[in-house]
Amino acid sequence: MTNRNITIKDVAKQANVSVATVSRVINGLDRVSESTRKRVLKIIQELNFVPNNMAASMVNKKTNMISVVVPEIQNPFYTAVIEGTVEVAKREGFFTLVLSTNGDEGEEEEFLDSFLGKNVDGIILIGSHKEAEFYREIQKPTILVDRYFNDSGHDGVMIDNYRGAYEATKHFIEYGHERIAIIDGAHDFNDGKDRFWGYKQAMLEHGFTPDPAYHKQGNWTEEDGYKFAKELLQSHQPPTAIFAANNVLCKGTIRAIRDMNLKLGEDISLIGFDENELAQFVQPQVTVVRRPTREMGEQAAEMLIHKIKGGQLEPSKPKKVILDVELMKCGSVKKLN
Amino acid sequence: MTNRNITIKDVAKQANVSVATVSRVINGLDRVSESTRKRVLKIIQELNFVPNNMAASMVNKKTNMISVVVPEIQNPFYTAVIEGTVEVAKREGFFTLVLSTNGDEGEEEEFLDSFLGKNVDGIILIGSHKEAEFYREIQKPTILVDRYFNDSGHDGVMIDNYRGAYEATKHFIEYGHERIAIIDGAHDFNDGKDRFWGYKQAMLEHGFTPDPAYHKQGNWTEEDGYKFAKELLQSHQPPTAIFAANNVLCKGTIRAIRDMNLKLGEDISLIGFDENELAQFVQPQVTVVRRPTREMGEQAAEMLIHKIKGGQLEPSKPKKVILDVELMKCGSVKKLN
Repeated sequence: MTNRNITIKDVAKQANVSVATVSRVINGLDRVSESTRKRVLKIIQELNFVPNNMAASMVNKKTNMISVVVPEIQNPFYTAVIEGTVEVAKREGFFTLVLSTNGDEGEEEEFLDSFLGKNVDGIILIGSHKEAEFYREIQKPTILVDRYFNDSGHDGVMIDNYRGAYEATKHFIEYGHERIAIIDGAHDFNDGKDRFWGYKQAMLEHGFTPDPAYHKQGNWTEEDGYKFAKELLQSHQPPTAIFAANNVLCKGTIRAIRDMNLKLGEDISLIGFDENELAQFVQPQVTVVRRPTREMGEQAAEMLIHKIKGGQLEPSKPKKVILDVELMKCGSVKKLN
Repeated sequence: MTNRNITIKDVAKQANVSVATVSRVINGLDRVSESTRKRVLKIIQELNFVPNNMAASMVNKKTNMISVVVPEIQNPFYTAVIEGTVEVAKREGFFTLVLSTNGDEGEEEEFLDSFLGKNVDGIILIGSHKEAEFYREIQKPTILVDRYFNDSGHDGVMIDNYRGAYEATKHFIEYGHERIAIIDGAHDFNDGKDRFWGYKQAMLEHGFTPDPAYHKQGNWTEEDGYKFAKELLQSHQPPTAIFAANNVLCKGTIRAIRDMNLKLGEDISLIGFDENELAQFVQPQVTVVRRPTREMGEQAAEMLIHKIKGGQLEPSKPKKVILDVELMKCGSVKKLN
């Protein structure tokens, strides 16, 4: 890792030359002897010196690069957001750099502090940090996508997670279901939290008290979808309907239903959140809450580039753009009434 | 886009200050009046000046960043390679930046010529250019992955495409199939070409002349897999076996078989190249040529970082690492003999 405390002065001292000479070497100017040049470069390398000052002083300089920072790139939701971003950025003459942080807060920080993080013109961020404070400290034009933090000071592009889950649950209820289970993951971010609340609210509004035994909470992974669906379906009184709160949990649930030789939409009803390949493949296809994933990236890129080009010095009030979701009704919900 | 012909001297002239002053501003040094500093920064911005000289003169400077350049990121093959790369890079203290070029040669070039392309320590490249000459001109440590060009001067990590296709075809033949079709895309790169030759060679060696009507060639997309599989299966004399030469062609073929209400492994036999989600989901599962995708990224990252750390000045002879493939026999090939 680079040492951010090393300055051009340290390099000059170590090389026993003036700061101006180091500066001349860095900028590739003439009138530096070959031996001096080599010595300075060697010391720059030894000290692992990055001219951060330059980045700082060039804060007004455009690099025509933006960065999309995501927790992972194996999930098609993230790649769809990235694709949308890249398309708009390209049209506007920007490179898009993708950084996957593995959901690791340290990696996210390290990137933002890096020479590169400081040199992109702006950032589209599906963050891994859980506190608004972290986001507040980002000085660059930044658009938060999917996960939003009030008081972060940044604009955001999100979807209405609450409404998506609410509509899904209401659809089950309207079809006569009462024993409705939800499989989700940690409520670290607004998206997961809001989906759970949408489910809960729809239940309560229709006079049902959500049974804690029907709330299976683990990781947002296919494995946990599979495991929890099996647990639910093998329980003493299985639910008649399952709401799988993201795409991979839904895939795991589909596999579990298949492996237990149950008939989808007959023995068990299912609604997923986000499209996924298995939901589209099985017959009947699975009803899902569809969100405009690619459009989220496009919208975020447009907002970001507008900010960069405007070069606004006085920040306006943060703006949230909420894109709409849609319940795509297929054949996986049985009518009980 | 930045103008690469602007030098620090142009900035100095325009700002009516000395080159040393511009240099001091760029490096954030003291002893520049605030008004001068502002004027210089304004002109730097107006001229869209990027201190490329710096990048050039800092050729020995490590940034601890590598880049993975891929044609697209929606295909799980690419994301698996990226994940493998990121894992090794992280362990070794490097950032990995992902760039998707959409298979566009211009975008690939633009990145390599950019400030950023010049500032990463090395590149892992699944190239879109079709000529060795392009790759030869890349001065950075570079590892070519999957697509290789002899005389490019770079090391490569590939798999044995020829053998994979050969084994798949041979497996069909050993099970008594003669009417064996292949669905593939353009032969722009070694991978596609080698898969076709592996198929052809296995046919010829076993005394069969490949029927051109059984070679369906289009794009490497799911749509074309679907379309060609339907065409083959609806033809006057349909094949008994289909070799789908990549993961998305295989997915399209699986959908076509399903939509035509044919029984996989009974009415039609199928082998795919690369694992894919549908191949694993359907029953019987689809026999595929499995290649170590994640390992390709790991191997490439290890070779690249070794090169970067070694800082070798004299290039050694290019090295190709060929990883092995494996025919994962499942239930999609019917025994006819």
